[in-house]
Amino acid sequence: MISVNDARELLFDLVAPLPAEHTPLAKSAGRVLAQDVVATRNQPPFAASSMDGYAVKAAEVERHAMFKIVGESAAGRRFDGSVGPGQAVRIFTGAPVPEGADFVVIQEDTERRGDLITITDAPGPKVNIRPTGVDFTKGTTISAPRLIRAEDVALMAAMNIPQVPVTQRPEIALISTGDELVMPGETPGPDQIIASNTFGLQALLEDLGARVRILPIAQDTVSSLETAFDLARGADLVVTIGGASVGDYDLVSDVSHGLGMERSFYKIRMRPGKPLMAGRLGDAAMVGLPGNPVSAMVCGYLFLAPMVRRMLGLDQVLTSFQRAKLTEPLPANGPREHYMRAILDENGIRACPDQDSSLLSVLAEANALLVRPPQDSTQKTGDEVLYLPL
Amino acid sequence: MISVNDARELLFDLVAPLPAEHTPLAKSAGRVLAQDVVATRNQPPFAASSMDGYAVKAAEVERHAMFKIVGESAAGRRFDGSVGPGQAVRIFTGAPVPEGADFVVIQEDTERRGDLITITDAPGPKVNIRPTGVDFTKGTTISAPRLIRAEDVALMAAMNIPQVPVTQRPEIALISTGDELVMPGETPGPDQIIASNTFGLQALLEDLGARVRILPIAQDTVSSLETAFDLARGADLVVTIGGASVGDYDLVSDVSHGLGMERSFYKIRMRPGKPLMAGRLGDAAMVGLPGNPVSAMVCGYLFLAPMVRRMLGLDQVLTSFQRAKLTEPLPANGPREHYMRAILDENGIRACPDQDSSLLSVLAEANALLVRPPQDSTQKTGDEVLYLPL
Repeated sequence: MISVNDARELLFDLVAPLPAEHTPLAKSAGRVLAQDVVATRNQPPFAASSMDGYAVKAAEVERHAMFKIVGESAAGRRFDGSVGPGQAVRIFTGAPVPEGADFVVIQEDTERRGDLITITDAPGPKVNIRPTGVDFTKGTTISAPRLIRAEDVALMAAMNIPQVPVTQRPEIALISTGDELVMPGETPGPDQIIASNTFGLQALLEDLGARVRILPIAQDTVSSLETAFDLARGADLVVTIGGASVGDYDLVSDVSHGLGMERSFYKIRMRPGKPLMAGRLGDAAMVGLPGNPVSAMVCGYLFLAPMVRRMLGLDQVLTSFQRAKLTEPLPANGPREHYMRAILDENGIRACPDQDSSLLSVLAEANALLVRPPQDSTQKTGDEVLYLPL
Repeated sequence: MISVNDARELLFDLVAPLPAEHTPLAKSAGRVLAQDVVATRNQPPFAASSMDGYAVKAAEVERHAMFKIVGESAAGRRFDGSVGPGQAVRIFTGAPVPEGADFVVIQEDTERRGDLITITDAPGPKVNIRPTGVDFTKGTTISAPRLIRAEDVALMAAMNIPQVPVTQRPEIALISTGDELVMPGETPGPDQIIASNTFGLQALLEDLGARVRILPIAQDTVSSLETAFDLARGADLVVTIGGASVGDYDLVSDVSHGLGMERSFYKIRMRPGKPLMAGRLGDAAMVGLPGNPVSAMVCGYLFLAPMVRRMLGLDQVLTSFQRAKLTEPLPANGPREHYMRAILDENGIRACPDQDSSLLSVLAEANALLVRPPQDSTQKTGDEVLYLPL
């Protein structure tokens, strides 16, 4: 058995960042920028007015000064002439400041009669002009890797980057194993239950940016598992759920070895999720998750999510633990790291009363995993603990 | 001019929760549960072993006790007989506990020879059996509304809910206005810039669960704007960007009124984003955002996001402000609430140096909006301020 941290290191060795592809800007949010992108223009491309008003010479600006309006500069339609002494050009927000002008008097500070304006209020020192390239200039770079947010999409649009180089989405094949499983919507026999792990993991992994294929449920037979592994071909990561424990019906290990799986490790010193197995299977990474629903989901957060982030080429692949104060005491922990389902609120954090790894209802109520180190001593109300938000 | 809070109240009155529709379970993550869903079965549907081992009578369990194996219960294939005195049934995790047995001795505590097992270690009081329905029972309800997370998907799968009632996605039409705008990928003229607001807002709103249509850019003419409003028909929310200020070229207000827009309010006492306009236009809510890129995005977070959440039927529509300590001092604020682009790190929060509302590069670097109340006094390093995470 190895520690959670050692397991993570070994899992990272099983995957590598995927190649880049181009996606339309409008589809780029939530993807990972794979290569630096560079502005092909200045923003603004010209000195632009930041207000509605009148463009004049700064040296002439004072209260009671009068100007003759000689033209208009609107956004998209500049004034082509030059502003001479005593002259003003009507100008709107975002419009190019005409030649000869270096000050925009805001319209609230003026009075207009026909083609003449008078400055009625002392305009102050602000020139109300945005210099060329104040936002960015030709050559300004957005550095990869970067998880693309809405703000980045807006910035790339302004930079005129219609196609964005992003890391390909990792493809993940999910295989549930077990004679007792049927798919949602089917009518289970008296000994059967509904497959739930693949659906929960699909949602978790798709949210991170993976493409997920749920494969047909594999029965507890060699040929059924072999068929499932066959169907998984082409995936970057193959995940089996169940069949990784010690029971006679746990065939995943045998079958995957028969297919050439090179095992990296088996069993992690943790609760829940001890019987996790990982290795390389052909061109894919393979992870065998335990079948208890909560174990599978917790391992999804702790192990699969960082693997996905690494395949996406992100620098930050581990979700960082956060700190909160206990609102209820905790008993001492045993020899394994324990990831307890917990409720975090504005008062602090508390472990859910029943930590049995079969209880999906408890997991769905939880919003955090409270982390107990091995052999952690009794903790009192108010003691600080680490947690991972869910 | 009204306050940010008053504006939000009025905006909520412009929209209402949308009807429900059914979506396949595998597509339900990130959607909003619209109606309570109810488990149609117990989980587990039978008393189930939580370990690999041997099912026996609890009264007979002690160190050195010997049992004869009379059968096997595997997940999906139960033992049909009954466990009598001195008898044991080989059992695997998740398998039904046979009649007559009320204890599972884990296999590590036994020694097996042929059909006989001997208990080698005192098994302790844990029976290693999950009672019928310990996770949930027929009739257990998941209450709406609820933003569906991966854990909920797993739970609904286990409950055998293959189709999930979710709120319809709000449809939002985005109209950029301005002669100066061209689409990304085009070659702008010397007076032109690239439309960026619609792309940034699309990413923001789609992430919340809306369907977003980017409409063709409307020129600064009545007919071009009328065409755009025509194309927006059918949307639940029509958002214009630009053209909401006081300039002669700000036609959005005139044209929308001509089309029957009933104005709710115009102008908010805030920076950036003062010239925001809102009302009802036919069957849709309409919001006119200012055209400066940062203003548009900030208003997206502050006003459009809560409107989307309300249309999705969520209870919690406002993102709650959080608290952090300043790592740099702040000057006094003016009469308008100010949402400053800010950087939050483990040391605290600081405002970005340049708060000009045209600077997308600053917004893309920011990860928080630091909130200054009207007339807020000078703040020192270490003072606590409110912020919204971006």
